[in-house]
Amino acid sequence: MNDLNLSPLKKVEIILEGEHMEFATDLLERAGVKGYTIVNQLSGKGSHGFYEGHVMFNEDDVLIMIISAVPESLIEPILEGFTPFFNKHSGVIFISDIQVSRLVKFASQPDS
Amino acid sequence: MNDLNLSPLKKVEIILEGEHMEFATDLLERAGVKGYTIVNQLSGKGSHGFYEGHVMFNEDDVLIMIISAVPESLIEPILEGFTPFFNKHSGVIFISDIQVSRLVKFASQPDS
Amino acid sequence: MNDLNLSPLKKVEIILEGEHMEFATDLLERAGVKGYTIVNQLSGKGSHGFYEGHVMFNEDDVLIMIISAVPESLIEPILEGFTPFFNKHSGVIFISDIQVSRLVKFASQPDS
Repeated sequence: MNDLNLSPLKKVEIILEGEHMEFATDLLERAGVKGYTIVNQLSGKGSHGFYEGHVMFNEDDVLIMIISAVPESLIEPILEGFTPFFNKHSGVIFISDIQVSRLVKFASQPDS
Repeated sequence: MNDLNLSPLKKVEIILEGEHMEFATDLLERAGVKGYTIVNQLSGKGSHGFYEGHVMFNEDDVLIMIISAVPESLIEPILEGFTPFFNKHSGVIFISDIQVSRLVKFASQPDS
Repeated sequence: MNDLNLSPLKKVEIILEGEHMEFATDLLERAGVKGYTIVNQLSGKGSHGFYEGHVMFNEDDVLIMIISAVPESLIEPILEGFTPFFNKHSGVIFISDIQVSRLVKFASQPDS
């Protein structure tokens, strides 16, 4: 679908407690992420498939999900940046393949 | 996993300012989309990985994400339909591969 | 990206009317799902790409989306568990491939 001007990127979805939003978005920006979207007012329970017997989230937690589309090269710095945080706090990072429509208007080249 | 009655589709996620919801859903319906789900009250900042220095969303914007599962054949008309809009307004479209459980109850064939 | 400690899982997204949340989360837990995140206050209309003429959701419905990352082996019991429910109620299940960062802190082995 190259003629549709789609570019392959990685979708990063970070679910964590809302009180840590600014920490997370600062970390993303330092890693080179240009933007993100935040889904507020999530609820959750337990962990995401891995950790027997560990309650990752409690039902009373106010969670957020930060969504961003990034080049694959940013996955490693993002994950490395979040590792110390996730050693202390609950949360999970999902990574998946997406195609993003390139909004040609925003290209900086004058010939576009 | 054919025995699980799963069908491959494309997941379309459109993030845009909430004030343009009706425009977007009308466009989807005209393109042949049969349904969609909307996540309200998103917030966001910046762009999704592409546009150096361009602030796509401001933190004060009220954003929505429209989610739909569509046949691959609808991706092109959807993207083409949104191009003039995204030449004037902020937003992004994510496309990814999903499997959807076919809810056989809803099939219209009497022999199903 | 094995050095990034990512594990392939399946992402399950279940969209259904909010009043059935507890039924759905109970079913997931019985199927072996360890946790989930819920996006509240969705709205929606129609069906997701399959069912000509069938209005799956009405615009007044209050919908939720339950998100979980599960091993592939759980997909079949989850779908089988929801089949009788979806024979009576509206909803859809999306399944996609994701990578999840393994949060090593939560491993139960003392040598981790």
